[in-house]
Amino acid sequence: MEKLIIVKVGGAVLEDQSTLNDFLNQFAAIPYKKILVHGGGRAATKLSKQLGIETKMVDGRRITDEETIKIVTMVYGGLINKNTVAGLQAKGCNALGLTGVDMNLISAVKRPVAEIDYGLVGDVTRVNTFAFNLLLQADFVPVIAPITHDNKGQLFNTNADTVASSIATSLTAIYDVSLVYCFEKAGVLSDPDNDESVIEALNIELYQDYKKSGLIHSGMIPKLDNSFNALEKGVREVLITNAVTLNTGKGTHLSL
Amino acid sequence: MEKLIIVKVGGAVLEDQSTLNDFLNQFAAIPYKKILVHGGGRAATKLSKQLGIETKMVDGRRITDEETIKIVTMVYGGLINKNTVAGLQAKGCNALGLTGVDMNLISAVKRPVAEIDYGLVGDVTRVNTFAFNLLLQADFVPVIAPITHDNKGQLFNTNADTVASSIATSLTAIYDVSLVYCFEKAGVLSDPDNDESVIEALNIELYQDYKKSGLIHSGMIPKLDNSFNALEKGVREVLITNAVTLNTGKGTHLSL
Repeated sequence: MEKLIIVKVGGAVLEDQSTLNDFLNQFAAIPYKKILVHGGGRAATKLSKQLGIETKMVDGRRITDEETIKIVTMVYGGLINKNTVAGLQAKGCNALGLTGVDMNLISAVKRPVAEIDYGLVGDVTRVNTFAFNLLLQADFVPVIAPITHDNKGQLFNTNADTVASSIATSLTAIYDVSLVYCFEKAGVLSDPDNDESVIEALNIELYQDYKKSGLIHSGMIPKLDNSFNALEKGVREVLITNAVTLNTGKGTHLSL
Repeated sequence: MEKLIIVKVGGAVLEDQSTLNDFLNQFAAIPYKKILVHGGGRAATKLSKQLGIETKMVDGRRITDEETIKIVTMVYGGLINKNTVAGLQAKGCNALGLTGVDMNLISAVKRPVAEIDYGLVGDVTRVNTFAFNLLLQADFVPVIAPITHDNKGQLFNTNADTVASSIATSLTAIYDVSLVYCFEKAGVLSDPDNDESVIEALNIELYQDYKKSGLIHSGMIPKLDNSFNALEKGVREVLITNAVTLNTGKGTHLSL
């Protein structure tokens, strides 16, 4: 099967024009079929603040009311997505920016209300592998903003890590898929303040141990849960690495 | 040659959810290959105001500084584009929302500074007919926000009427193209306050007369100039009509 690399890049990387440029150079240089998924939470929080709209987060997830879905649609689907695509086009990478709404790429349902009502937050139910494959076969590079829909006109805010792993697992039916999570750190660190403390290899057993001991905690947990879930569902490899050294093979390599 | 309908819809139509829904029903029902181009100026002005950024217009064109290009990218490329696509997807119309940056669809150059510097406003230099045709042949419906780029990473604000006529004329090489300008009026009116005063047919000679006499003036002139230019370049027909009665054949029919 043909190789496909799905890269997710975090909001902090996209904010600084110079870091973004370094990252896009790395991404454009990947010599395989590829998809980029981006976040943009910090920019959304900034715009909310400018508009006097309070940002409410629970466990790192944004409570998304009617005003907030407009903001994330503007920031993720408009500002960040189009700037990223323009940057890639300038490097000769034939990108196009889409959300899960476009071509009906990613359907979702409103997250069920358990203890918390997250509002217009969607859990992915279906990825349109046909449409992704059509774009990839025509040598376009999809750049995906983490907005999904319910097929009835309602947009949802969806976690970008989950969007990346959902696309990755769906496309294992057609491609040999690798998933790369890029952020501002060098990988999963044993000491969060020391960028030299990268855990180079992590299997699921070790991950469970580190979680129990508290060595791995908070924000890394959903990312790693997503990663191991993707491996279990047929993704060949998952790498967690720094955005600007994406192609060096450095970072944390995950295996089952 | 296969029939292709290019519809441009103005910002006023997109603002009211009920009018938008009526328009999208009309658009979704067009039984030919089709492209939608939308504006969004009013919503951009509203967001600018909320953010304390002054809107400067000259002859109906927005002076576009660094802050304003961010706003139009968010509003046109994000909010309006994705809501429109979600509405069409809910009606079973397989739309995808793009700007001129995506797939390198529409290249432009910064409008030369004559008396006025419009800032980051782009004049269209090239439409990527290959990419449009690829989407149309796969039965997708492109929904285009009027943002273009210089192929070097710079986004431009571009007049939506011009984007529609540029796409229309470029695609005459491959399709039998009709161009429809939809707005909140019933057509070109001889009395702007009377929606019954639609000029049903307008040729270029009559247009010149009406322009001289002042019967047709201000905002209609660039729209009609664009229209006659498109007819001269091979577009089969141009119709100017009300957005919610798009498929009735009512409105102003233009010919050379």
